Amino acid sequence: MKQILNKIVQQVVKAQRFLVCSHESPDGDAIGSTLGLTLGLQRLGKEVVAYNVDGVPEILKFLPGSQSLVTELRADAAFDVIFVLDAGDLSRAACRPAEQGTMLINLDHHPGSNFGHLCYLDTSAAATAVLVYRLLCACGLKLDLEVATALYTGLLSDTGSFRYANSNPEAFRVAAELVGLGINTWTIASALYESQPRERMQLLAQVLPTLYVAPSGQYASVFMTLDMLEKAGAAPEHTDGFVNYPRAISGVEVAVFFRQVDASTIKVGFRSRGNIDVGQLSKNLGGGGHKNAAGAFVEGSLDQVAPRVYHLLEALLK
Amino acid sequence: MKQILNKIVQQVVKAQRFLVCSHESPDGDAIGSTLGLTLGLQRLGKEVVAYNVDGVPEILKFLPGSQSLVTELRADAAFDVIFVLDAGDLSRAACRPAEQGTMLINLDHHPGSNFGHLCYLDTSAAATAVLVYRLLCACGLKLDLEVATALYTGLLSDTGSFRYANSNPEAFRVAAELVGLGINTWTIASALYESQPRERMQLLAQVLPTLYVAPSGQYASVFMTLDMLEKAGAAPEHTDGFVNYPRAISGVEVAVFFRQVDASTIKVGFRSRGNIDVGQLSKNLGGGGHKNAAGAFVEGSLDQVAPRVYHLLEALLK
Repeated sequence: MKQILNKIVQQVVKAQRFLVCSHESPDGDAIGSTLGLTLGLQRLGKEVVAYNVDGVPEILKFLPGSQSLVTELRADAAFDVIFVLDAGDLSRAACRPAEQGTMLINLDHHPGSNFGHLCYLDTSAAATAVLVYRLLCACGLKLDLEVATALYTGLLSDTGSFRYANSNPEAFRVAAELVGLGINTWTIASALYESQPRERMQLLAQVLPTLYVAPSGQYASVFMTLDMLEKAGAAPEHTDGFVNYPRAISGVEVAVFFRQVDASTIKVGFRSRGNIDVGQLSKNLGGGGHKNAAGAFVEGSLDQVAPRVYHLLEALLK
Repeated sequence: MKQILNKIVQQVVKAQRFLVCSHESPDGDAIGSTLGLTLGLQRLGKEVVAYNVDGVPEILKFLPGSQSLVTELRADAAFDVIFVLDAGDLSRAACRPAEQGTMLINLDHHPGSNFGHLCYLDTSAAATAVLVYRLLCACGLKLDLEVATALYTGLLSDTGSFRYANSNPEAFRVAAELVGLGINTWTIASALYESQPRERMQLLAQVLPTLYVAPSGQYASVFMTLDMLEKAGAAPEHTDGFVNYPRAISGVEVAVFFRQVDASTIKVGFRSRGNIDVGQLSKNLGGGGHKNAAGAFVEGSLDQVAPRVYHLLEALLK
């Protein structure tokens, strides 16, 4: 691992023109890592283009350097090194294939990520921002507040505000270093967690009263209709995280979010705790996902789909 | 500061019978500090009674040692040292006055806390759990997973999951040490943040549809009536944190939660961002609090109180 890092440092030292990119639909770690590395390389005197096919999400536009990130590359742009960060798979980065003579470097913490001329993969890292931190330190860069802000945002985002089990000692040690450079943790946390569009809250205000808790208390659900969406002036992506409300109830082992997609289709999203496997349940419904987070598009009205799902859950939880 | 800590260590070394207590209506830091210090002193071979007038809140009962905490003290119990933690003021600890010969030691991070024969006050500490951590380390104790779990819970709770501005480098360094002892951060975070009583969620489902966002977008409110409380089978303390929902809307500078207390009284809770001073506003309404978090009991019905508050907010935010 250390050897790969050293090889990457050598590439950084000798190269001049860099492209830094990450995956489509970027989250806080994708953008935080991209901007942190971009700013860091610039401090080292390099020419750097930060790129993301989907640009910087609204809530991350407070990040230093975010206004310089481009969503299109000039046809004649040439790079010595392309960094692909946090992408899991090269296709998700939607960046051009590396040309002859261009070094492709992959920094990632997702299991199975194995592309690139140099691949620095460490699944024990809480965030790709931690890998960028290691790299910039190995390059001898003295980090400043702007770089720290970008990297801290990646770390905060991928650890779920230091709640997820990936919040390991290194994550906290890196946070201590970054915060020591002058970060106001509340400023970043409130940008990430306390700046919701009004439409989202107005949608949640309609969705939450649909809360259903099963008599056993083992599962709970909420639903959203297209009417609610229209009334709130909201978009389907505003429902991200709504399934966390039934999930947060004590005793609930499976949480379900029913989202009406059109007159005859319901998107059913599942979250489960511990060993309850909702991935298989979703597959049986024609969908997919993991053990604790999965979903499926199911034909029918809510009145048809919900009882069917509840029936399957009763069997699963028996 | 170091000198006081050393004096406290001397007391710990020479004393045998300890009482450890904290403030009424204890939060995660009060209980986490109490149990962390209790377990730590026991590891040092001391006899320790952990006490809190209100006992351990339901969501903190997962903590090691919580079942041994008592809510009443035997009339003939005698102690060499009484530790009062995180209390701000001695009266809030509701523990008996120290008898002749009993050493009263105050560990706190609240400004102005200055009682006790020995007072170890450090307002730069993110949590009282950090002060207990310093003390136990100064006593030469090698911390174990149980002590770490209690202290980490205090730290997580008082930093708002490392979001608040008090999340300083020391908070992260202490977290790194504690997590290194084997803590699963998700287990603790989900106990604190994902184990809500069903009644609370059912109450929130009624409160959230009352969301009002001012035309300017600068302030927003929700309200709770006694009818809602009854319908949800909930208690007033279940409304803790409800003011965070209007606060989380982008652009909102002041969030208000109106809670009906009885037929003719409304509790008005305020949260503000940045330099907006709701403390003074609350004082004008006969209440109190700080610049960014304050509240008042106001006579009248909701229909009377809300317009009055909105009027004051319009003036404040102009």
